[in-house]
Amino acid sequence: MPKRYAYLGPEGTFTEAALRALVPGEDAGAFVPCTGVDAVFAAVRDGEVAGGVAPLENSVEGGVTATIAELINGDPLLIAAETAIPVEFTLFARSGVALSDVKRVATHPHALAQCRGWLARHLPDAETFTMSSTAAAAQAVAEPGAPYDAAISARIAGERYGLAAVAEGVGDRSEAATRFVYLTRPGALPEPTGADRTSLVAFIADDHPGALVELLNQFAVRGVNLTRLESRPTGDGLGRYCFCIDADGHVAEARVGEALMGLRRICTDIRFLGSYPRADAETELTPFIPARGTTNAAFHEAEEWLARIRSGAVA
Amino acid sequence: MPKRYAYLGPEGTFTEAALRALVPGEDAGAFVPCTGVDAVFAAVRDGEVAGGVAPLENSVEGGVTATIAELINGDPLLIAAETAIPVEFTLFARSGVALSDVKRVATHPHALAQCRGWLARHLPDAETFTMSSTAAAAQAVAEPGAPYDAAISARIAGERYGLAAVAEGVGDRSEAATRFVYLTRPGALPEPTGADRTSLVAFIADDHPGALVELLNQFAVRGVNLTRLESRPTGDGLGRYCFCIDADGHVAEARVGEALMGLRRICTDIRFLGSYPRADAETELTPFIPARGTTNAAFHEAEEWLARIRSGAVA
Amino acid sequence: MPKRYAYLGPEGTFTEAALRALVPGEDAGAFVPCTGVDAVFAAVRDGEVAGGVAPLENSVEGGVTATIAELINGDPLLIAAETAIPVEFTLFARSGVALSDVKRVATHPHALAQCRGWLARHLPDAETFTMSSTAAAAQAVAEPGAPYDAAISARIAGERYGLAAVAEGVGDRSEAATRFVYLTRPGALPEPTGADRTSLVAFIADDHPGALVELLNQFAVRGVNLTRLESRPTGDGLGRYCFCIDADGHVAEARVGEALMGLRRICTDIRFLGSYPRADAETELTPFIPARGTTNAAFHEAEEWLARIRSGAVA
Amino acid sequence: MPKRYAYLGPEGTFTEAALRALVPGEDAGAFVPCTGVDAVFAAVRDGEVAGGVAPLENSVEGGVTATIAELINGDPLLIAAETAIPVEFTLFARSGVALSDVKRVATHPHALAQCRGWLARHLPDAETFTMSSTAAAAQAVAEPGAPYDAAISARIAGERYGLAAVAEGVGDRSEAATRFVYLTRPGALPEPTGADRTSLVAFIADDHPGALVELLNQFAVRGVNLTRLESRPTGDGLGRYCFCIDADGHVAEARVGEALMGLRRICTDIRFLGSYPRADAETELTPFIPARGTTNAAFHEAEEWLARIRSGAVA
Repeated sequence: MPKRYAYLGPEGTFTEAALRALVPGEDAGAFVPCTGVDAVFAAVRDGEVAGGVAPLENSVEGGVTATIAELINGDPLLIAAETAIPVEFTLFARSGVALSDVKRVATHPHALAQCRGWLARHLPDAETFTMSSTAAAAQAVAEPGAPYDAAISARIAGERYGLAAVAEGVGDRSEAATRFVYLTRPGALPEPTGADRTSLVAFIADDHPGALVELLNQFAVRGVNLTRLESRPTGDGLGRYCFCIDADGHVAEARVGEALMGLRRICTDIRFLGSYPRADAETELTPFIPARGTTNAAFHEAEEWLARIRSGAVA
Repeated sequence: MPKRYAYLGPEGTFTEAALRALVPGEDAGAFVPCTGVDAVFAAVRDGEVAGGVAPLENSVEGGVTATIAELINGDPLLIAAETAIPVEFTLFARSGVALSDVKRVATHPHALAQCRGWLARHLPDAETFTMSSTAAAAQAVAEPGAPYDAAISARIAGERYGLAAVAEGVGDRSEAATRFVYLTRPGALPEPTGADRTSLVAFIADDHPGALVELLNQFAVRGVNLTRLESRPTGDGLGRYCFCIDADGHVAEARVGEALMGLRRICTDIRFLGSYPRADAETELTPFIPARGTTNAAFHEAEEWLARIRSGAVA
Repeated sequence: MPKRYAYLGPEGTFTEAALRALVPGEDAGAFVPCTGVDAVFAAVRDGEVAGGVAPLENSVEGGVTATIAELINGDPLLIAAETAIPVEFTLFARSGVALSDVKRVATHPHALAQCRGWLARHLPDAETFTMSSTAAAAQAVAEPGAPYDAAISARIAGERYGLAAVAEGVGDRSEAATRFVYLTRPGALPEPTGADRTSLVAFIADDHPGALVELLNQFAVRGVNLTRLESRPTGDGLGRYCFCIDADGHVAEARVGEALMGLRRICTDIRFLGSYPRADAETELTPFIPARGTTNAAFHEAEEWLARIRSGAVA
Repeated sequence: MPKRYAYLGPEGTFTEAALRALVPGEDAGAFVPCTGVDAVFAAVRDGEVAGGVAPLENSVEGGVTATIAELINGDPLLIAAETAIPVEFTLFARSGVALSDVKRVATHPHALAQCRGWLARHLPDAETFTMSSTAAAAQAVAEPGAPYDAAISARIAGERYGLAAVAEGVGDRSEAATRFVYLTRPGALPEPTGADRTSLVAFIADDHPGALVELLNQFAVRGVNLTRLESRPTGDGLGRYCFCIDADGHVAEARVGEALMGLRRICTDIRFLGSYPRADAETELTPFIPARGTTNAAFHEAEEWLARIRSGAVA
């Protein structure tokens, strides 16, 4: 049976573009659009699909709440890969509709947030409506008798639903991008590549001044850089947080492994979300220079030295 | 002219309930519902209203993206007060509609996220639609010929639009709550009460291992506890973050003031968002015990001592 | 051939008392007094003796310079045990000499420093002379025609040289004590007892603000308490230091071992001086409570967890 | 009445050379040699002299115990200046004595420690005797019928007592140097020069893992580098320490002042010992680059900013 892949649908979203980038060469027939991030996770957890793709964070809006909630709760899945997709928005309408005709615009809330400036300048009087995806907005606009005049969506969605581009580049930030993750059931991790990322969730035991510093020190003393830190409510009431952390490096590396063991010892709980190649590895201008004493070789040498001094050999 | 207050509308949302709690005694005629958090901020910034109310974080979903974006960008506003409102969801429909009739449910995306479990158990086949607010969903359901059978909203919204409760307590977490902030233009800060919170946004200069530890150490060495830490993209591409921070204490206190000066010195930029009474002050079971040497008196004594030793008097 | 033991002589010093405490049951015929701490170390290094005893620090005067210099330089020796001896000084003279007759007092410089107050009160006009040991002072006073009238020494020395006690308890601090260490050539370490101490010398790589904090953080993040920290010049000019460190715990314990590996990785050099039972273990009123997550069991559990997540098993 | 200056005598010690360097232009008739470091401190405390000089640390032996004890205890004095004197040892004897005739060598214990290697090579069978100073050893050797054949001392002392140099450069480390401090009663501090040092003694409150890190963090977060850190017993029994600290900078600088206030708040006690020009300022190859945000200007700007945000002005 051929492999199948779930993604946040409907067809035509940026997530479909991310899935194509993450499993190149796979036939689109293997792609299963899901309604909602939770459905993507469920399909992976149930084994219906080999893997699934969901947006994790957006360079403008921040973390994608639903994806983070699924990563934190429920049966653990692993992030096996990531990709970053530029977010380029187009205003689509049915054929014959001019910009000046647009009174009601549908799109996804995140897209709306990223196009507010353009809308304020070009369609100051238009009403806006939010839907579950930009593609759903395009689909809705394409329906006969639709209550909306136009949709803001990715190019792929407008084309798929036979709409015409009224305006392009309607996003306020041309460098906007969304980071997508590829999820699998627990299994062998990707091999270290030298430019990897490790994701995890840490639940801290208490709330004294410096508790978070203690947690971060577990990384700092091993020279592990953090690329993302986001507190999320644990769901047990306001004021109780866990921390979603992305760190440079692969858990197979000694410095990352020891840092994670340190967290394991001092945290109430810790959920490992995977080690995988960084999407931005190729575009890094500066090579990673490990801090003094944090290479695998340095850890190995220190272990051998410890064995010698424990045995009573000359120090 | 009587004072007026903006809030995230439409009428009947949890935000209206928060506004009532934050300006008790004010007449509802002074309340101005806005479409979108951005409109609330704009009304306050433009001076159309004395203050505005927006949701800041939800105990289940985390930070409210739009509110945080407005706090970070644009002309600075101050948080002058906060309140926490329990989130209790009800499924409303037009009179005569039974639970088994419900095929299409409208609500706000955050509400949808918090009711997924209930929906999966009781309405597994229902389609869900997201709107700009739970009240908008209720309003939409109330319209003749509405394309939705039911709305998930606060009780106040269902009652306002003449709907009937089909099911109550449909939220997955009974202890869910949302924290709302009351925003004003810059001006005199609320007086310290002894149980205050200070909010700010810090932009860190670089990205070396330990940069965040350095930032947090500015709080830790002065005994200032953090109650929320959330990284947000700066909007300049993936991987560039600022940190939204809530700390215990009032900027008028010496320990908080010195910590903020420390941030000011080492950060690229820092935006002060206000010092205001904690909403959870009354429910705190344990009184705040300042860490050794962090009271105003300790700071004052140390200043006097420094003046003495700088003058060459006996140390 | 029976074992022999070197100590800082001559006979009758506090060091001889320490040696008796450290090798109980051994015959005094096995004790080899040495002139100078360097001779004690040389005797142990050359294999002439099974072990040697030297003073390490005094509760009033601090570290014993010569002992620390020998520990830092030359072929490494191990500290295999320690003991603390109360320092009680007596003023001895030849028979028939009264306190009022005493014009010239001989003793060791450290003893002199600890008896200055008593001398100022009772013998304000006496000249003082320093010798290589308090016992040497007693011996000198006992010689016919000695240029000194009295010696300050341990009781054992005065008795050995046939002197009479003129005044007892002439030390300014009744709680004064000296800590002695028992040195051996490298070999099997003493077994952990649950109340051990680990000694080492760390040479830090550079001199930026926080370099010492980084070093100490290697202990702090593993919950290892330091009981002594003393910077010593490296001998390469003023301003270049190494750090002599005593830490709670045994190198066989995971938390201590990992902290030492951390130092090994970030320091220019590190010299391990031994793990051995604490002399003050029995007098500890409060049992040692390891910090959260720093027991051997916690380290072991974290290692097993790391192995699981590295293998891709459920996190 | 002309000013007078106390120093650790007798005449001809390195301390006299240091005094000449510290009060250039003063007549030697104003120099008062004292027996013992305690007498130097007493003369300054009593107002008998304008200032006094004592050795503080030696690049080979470390801190000078007696000086540190006097700085920690008794009425506080200020360090108003420092100088570093190269330590060059010469073996002196009465005229006509050859190296091969030398059987008994007198010197100060610190000098002895620094000449052990030379003695072992050239006078392996000679007995050594320690005296209160190298000059006292020279003086003793000069006396008719002296029980010693030779003295190790500074050149100035051998010349003063009419001895002949038997061997020069007998120290084991050619770069050895001693740092001397100039002490005054409390009064106006020296003006900041841009290359200053601040000395102090800190008594920490308790003994939990990380207490010392907390202390050092008070410096690190303000970018203040430490140049010396030495634990000293408080005299209240083994295991109780205070920390003698030298830091870069002048207490008049904001970063140093705030760090000291931080110590004042968290320490049991703190004794300020002075801010004064660094002796090694001229020989520094690299200019001091203050860490980001630690200049006086940065502190001043942060204070103004804090005043603005406390007043409610735009942040």
